Amino acid sequence: MQDLPQGKFITLEGGEGVGKSTNLRFITQWLDEQGISYIQTREPGGTPLAEQLRSLLLEKRDERVDPTAELLMVFAARAQHLNQVIKPALAQGKWVVCDRFTDATYAYQGGGRGLDWALIAQLEQTVQGDLRPDSVLLLDVDPEIGLQRAASTGAADRFESEQMDFFRKVRAAYRKRAEGNPECYQLIDASVPLEEVQQSLAAALQQIAGGS
Amino acid sequence: MQDLPQGKFITLEGGEGVGKSTNLRFITQWLDEQGISYIQTREPGGTPLAEQLRSLLLEKRDERVDPTAELLMVFAARAQHLNQVIKPALAQGKWVVCDRFTDATYAYQGGGRGLDWALIAQLEQTVQGDLRPDSVLLLDVDPEIGLQRAASTGAADRFESEQMDFFRKVRAAYRKRAEGNPECYQLIDASVPLEEVQQSLAAALQQIAGGS
Repeated sequence: MQDLPQGKFITLEGGEGVGKSTNLRFITQWLDEQGISYIQTREPGGTPLAEQLRSLLLEKRDERVDPTAELLMVFAARAQHLNQVIKPALAQGKWVVCDRFTDATYAYQGGGRGLDWALIAQLEQTVQGDLRPDSVLLLDVDPEIGLQRAASTGAADRFESEQMDFFRKVRAAYRKRAEGNPECYQLIDASVPLEEVQQSLAAALQQIAGGS
Repeated sequence: MQDLPQGKFITLEGGEGVGKSTNLRFITQWLDEQGISYIQTREPGGTPLAEQLRSLLLEKRDERVDPTAELLMVFAARAQHLNQVIKPALAQGKWVVCDRFTDATYAYQGGGRGLDWALIAQLEQTVQGDLRPDSVLLLDVDPEIGLQRAASTGAADRFESEQMDFFRKVRAAYRKRAEGNPECYQLIDASVPLEEVQQSLAAALQQIAGGS
């Protein structure tokens, strides 16, 4: 009996209001149509403990949250999620579709909070070893537009309550990540009509599936 | 106006059932008698967010907790506690008496869980910079004796539910920390009658206070 080939690890990234939820549904529908076995998960979260950490991270609180504490909570949730969920799924040959991953840490805690990317890289290596997404699908839109879209979807959490300057830094950091490693990133303009975004996504998925 | 002298940072360490609670009361009573201004706090914990992290760490759960996730949660709580509570108190000239600190991380996550001390040292440097306790009061007792004492104080948490081998490793790691840096540690035999333990504590406190 042969081992299954390792599954593909795909992450969907982007700031507030880029359309991640809608496009996640599109991605999983595409995978269903192709008959590809996958799991859909998210960060921070994806296990009971990691979801509890997510709640602590998102909760609005009177206490100022130290940026390093925030960063370590994110990576704690990631260590749990990777070892309990992501690695076992990939080893079973499943694709993993993850709503945000370490690029979000570079963007939000690095870009947004101003933490040093070198520190993030050190924790990334500690927690992930050499595991990186096979492909990062980055939905990119001007935060002025994104926040108008996001405003209509319920009460703002601790991150959504940040100021425009924060979201600009998040976007710039995401774009810098993509520019630094273009072969692993699909930078997708999310300001165009949804059908065009989804044509780009389908083309990206086809390419990832073909490259196995 | 002169700046206040920096307060002293004292940690009380030890495994299960060494008598930390009783001896913490003795220490704070001694400080009260000397008219020394102090705060008493604990790890993991000491701020609302850090106490929530403590609850997640201690809670018994069906999910296996990844040791690296546990380590990062401990240091997340520590970053929050240091920046919100410990550093401001020391800067105001107050003593800080903390029930467990980073030595417990070397002992429990390093000794008990088997994580590399070099990784712990890296996180210690990231979170604490050069800040270290002025003195570590380490209550030391054979875990066979300690656990008999601890068994009578309520339901066991996720750490207290470990096996004897775990507690032996915790004790060995604590002792190794003390042996590696004897001028910062007071290794106190906690198997002797309480009055003798407290004589040792009083002598240690006198020495710390005198050295300011």
